[in-house]
Amino acid sequence: MSLDEVDKLRNEMKQITNQILGLISQRMELAKKIGEIKTILDLDIVDDKAELGVKSHVLDNSKNFSLDPEFTGRVVNLLITEAVRIQNIERMKKLNQVNNNLNNTSGNIKKNSIKVDVKNKTYLDNSSLEGKGPKIRSHLDVFNFAKTLEANGKSIIHMEVGEPDFPPPVEVRNELSNIYDSGKFHYTQAAGIAELRERLSKYLTTFFTEKTESKKHDNFVNPKNIIVTPGGRFGIFITFSSLLRPGDEIIVIEPAWPACHDCANYLGVKTRTVKSNLENGWEPDLNDIEDQININTKIICLNYPNNPTGKILSKETLKKIVVLASKSNLYLLSDEVYSNYAYRPFESIINFGYEKAILVSSFSKTFAMTGFRVGFAYSADKNIINKLINIQALALTSVAEPMQYCASLALNSDPQINRRIMKERIELVCNGLKNLPFEYVVPDGAMYVFARINKELKISDLKLVESLLDNGVAVAPGSGFGSSYSNFIRISTCIETQKIKTGLEVIKETLGKI
Amino acid sequence: MSLDEVDKLRNEMKQITNQILGLISQRMELAKKIGEIKTILDLDIVDDKAELGVKSHVLDNSKNFSLDPEFTGRVVNLLITEAVRIQNIERMKKLNQVNNNLNNTSGNIKKNSIKVDVKNKTYLDNSSLEGKGPKIRSHLDVFNFAKTLEANGKSIIHMEVGEPDFPPPVEVRNELSNIYDSGKFHYTQAAGIAELRERLSKYLTTFFTEKTESKKHDNFVNPKNIIVTPGGRFGIFITFSSLLRPGDEIIVIEPAWPACHDCANYLGVKTRTVKSNLENGWEPDLNDIEDQININTKIICLNYPNNPTGKILSKETLKKIVVLASKSNLYLLSDEVYSNYAYRPFESIINFGYEKAILVSSFSKTFAMTGFRVGFAYSADKNIINKLINIQALALTSVAEPMQYCASLALNSDPQINRRIMKERIELVCNGLKNLPFEYVVPDGAMYVFARINKELKISDLKLVESLLDNGVAVAPGSGFGSSYSNFIRISTCIETQKIKTGLEVIKETLGKI
Repeated sequence: MSLDEVDKLRNEMKQITNQILGLISQRMELAKKIGEIKTILDLDIVDDKAELGVKSHVLDNSKNFSLDPEFTGRVVNLLITEAVRIQNIERMKKLNQVNNNLNNTSGNIKKNSIKVDVKNKTYLDNSSLEGKGPKIRSHLDVFNFAKTLEANGKSIIHMEVGEPDFPPPVEVRNELSNIYDSGKFHYTQAAGIAELRERLSKYLTTFFTEKTESKKHDNFVNPKNIIVTPGGRFGIFITFSSLLRPGDEIIVIEPAWPACHDCANYLGVKTRTVKSNLENGWEPDLNDIEDQININTKIICLNYPNNPTGKILSKETLKKIVVLASKSNLYLLSDEVYSNYAYRPFESIINFGYEKAILVSSFSKTFAMTGFRVGFAYSADKNIINKLINIQALALTSVAEPMQYCASLALNSDPQINRRIMKERIELVCNGLKNLPFEYVVPDGAMYVFARINKELKISDLKLVESLLDNGVAVAPGSGFGSSYSNFIRISTCIETQKIKTGLEVIKETLGKI
Repeated sequence: MSLDEVDKLRNEMKQITNQILGLISQRMELAKKIGEIKTILDLDIVDDKAELGVKSHVLDNSKNFSLDPEFTGRVVNLLITEAVRIQNIERMKKLNQVNNNLNNTSGNIKKNSIKVDVKNKTYLDNSSLEGKGPKIRSHLDVFNFAKTLEANGKSIIHMEVGEPDFPPPVEVRNELSNIYDSGKFHYTQAAGIAELRERLSKYLTTFFTEKTESKKHDNFVNPKNIIVTPGGRFGIFITFSSLLRPGDEIIVIEPAWPACHDCANYLGVKTRTVKSNLENGWEPDLNDIEDQININTKIICLNYPNNPTGKILSKETLKKIVVLASKSNLYLLSDEVYSNYAYRPFESIINFGYEKAILVSSFSKTFAMTGFRVGFAYSADKNIINKLINIQALALTSVAEPMQYCASLALNSDPQINRRIMKERIELVCNGLKNLPFEYVVPDGAMYVFARINKELKISDLKLVESLLDNGVAVAPGSGFGSSYSNFIRISTCIETQKIKTGLEVIKETLGKI
């Protein structure tokens, strides 16, 4: 046993490393060839079924090779990602060739080649948009553009944003004036101040709907299982960061607020979407969810009351989703930021006693406190919350203490008045849309009406959004909530009644001119 | 060209994938053997030189194999990480064997085996601590334990935390009372409100020390190149998140606040440390920095005035570090949160006109606003700041608007009074330590004295911290700032003069009893 022996072994390793590189290189050459054929046959580069096949094969074989499946899973993810990258590059080269040929010798091109060209134009230039107006794709783009228009003197009715116009509870006003003199401006525990976590535990206890179920779980929310976050979004960000690794997958039910997809994408996690539709009253098909579950799936994401549709799932549906998640040992992330705006009975995920469920919520919508950036996450599994706390401590120490105290005091107020007002506004919009070329389902909750533009109008969401902006009304394009919803717009009800009425008038007039 | 052909190619790929797995398995077997020899020879498992050798070899060979070096870099990182993991597991098995042997047949063990055992005890149980007291390793552990003692009625003098005891500027008090009525509680731009960014741009302009250098850069800080973050820590977190990938490396000069190392570790990034020492007045050796730079190095991290030593680098030294960074095209992260507490001329990184420099700072220390969680980052390269803004938008939308306005108003105040007070306290501690068995360099800045415990005392930092806690004084152990500093304590000066005097008395008495 000596260092010489180590050197000898290291040389052997070097040879093997070379062989591995050689094989990877061969593998990439094969990927290129497959990519070429796919281009000619006009097939998508990413083939989910084939990918899953490779992953399953590798995971099944890990044991034969005495390798850790988690490790080989990462290796195969790397290989697949690189193969897709290479295939994309080759496809672009090919398309440029075809384009050049088209320019040089138009009329003399095989049908197949043209087909490739047309289909992949969008791939090559996915920043291209309809119309020549501003680059608008999401409600935030609309908001920013509307702000620019306002800065130039145009008056805009804002029906695009999800920011309630109510004042925060008056308790918050008093607390703000009290912060300085009471010295509430120090570092806090990463999980949040004890006072707020205790009050949140009482607040969450009111989310239990049935006392009869109290045998399964004792209808008690331990303050230690709560983390205070800078907004609901950060709750999602740290949940994903702590539970997911590159190559993992999540399931999102569309239409959906894009944050889950964006956070997943940032972490190298794939989002599989289940599409719900207007005809089925935005009820997701449970078979569709089951179909998307595979060895890589880690989290099913729920967001009810839903942004943008306002849908609330029934207790029965939720129960079935919990069973699905449980069967495959998946986490359930339930984003319940709109729970205060429920116009029919709403069931929080905490009612199902599922250990791998994570509830994410915030003060933003319920108490009209968006700018305070206070949210929270809860799980019955303390280990999950501890992981979230560790990442939060690492990333930003703690949430601003003054904001935590304001949130704590807000819990003394009753947000029901906000719910009642919002419900009236939703009814107002629905009534207004009745006589217009839109189809919609009356929302169960939230602060939006997600309306489909009548086919007869032959106008896309982006085009309509532009026209409406021209006429002084900002709404959100449906495509921002999923690629299948480009014939929808989301009308938000975060402005006062009179403005909503005027906004509806403008929508009517604008449609009349189309 | 048909789908059959695709299937055929996919089968070939499958074979190759199998071969790759087989080779990886062989490689891991070799790694195990090397690990066994290392265990017997009592060598560390991680061998930086060998690792670098493998990485260079692979990167050099990427082109021969027509593979992308970034991709092969990730593959080799995965292989190395897994090899280290496997070697660690094998070592633990081996040690458990040896331990069992020791228990069963004491006296009959080869010297080598015992050596392995002793050395690796700390590896196996790195949560073990000297003494039987609380599990204390960092200043935060001390703080938390001290809080528990206080809750039990013990009175504690806090010289462990880095939280100034000054009140925030009175301007902040007024602004807090104004927030609610002026409606400053909405979502803001992800980069921060325009007012604060503009004021910060003026504030940062005062960091330029020489007008004569204005030819190189026009001594102007564009507000668009500033991002407002929830504290300096989040500035570091998003800088690392956007600029680093697993397998990359950063260089940190120790002793150091542990955040950079922790964030790097979380991202799978390796930290190489350069150790500065008391004898050289905490001046880092530039050759040591240069020695640590390799193909994987991406960022050199600076933190001056330094926590814990208070060291400020001269303009000449900083210039040389900038040249070093520039030569290898590295980013320079300069954490300048203590810049207000400089008791000799301090040079901000912005004076060197280096495009790849990122300045991170905050309101926490300068304006005694820790709990407001407002910091900021600046780079002359707008692309870097844009990356930070994108991650911030993704992770938490924006910093709490009320906190941003408070920070903006704080800029109207003059933090010099804080500096003068802190300087007097630093002098008070230094004078007090003169007659005690400590060695130290009078700090150039910051809010701490980093003092070496005299060898004669034969006591470690943890042991001393415990004894002092028993006697009602909390200080931070040196080992929290780097493994080489376990014979140091950090005494912070964030409490009033009278308490400092009492604290010093207690330290004196405690030492008298050792």
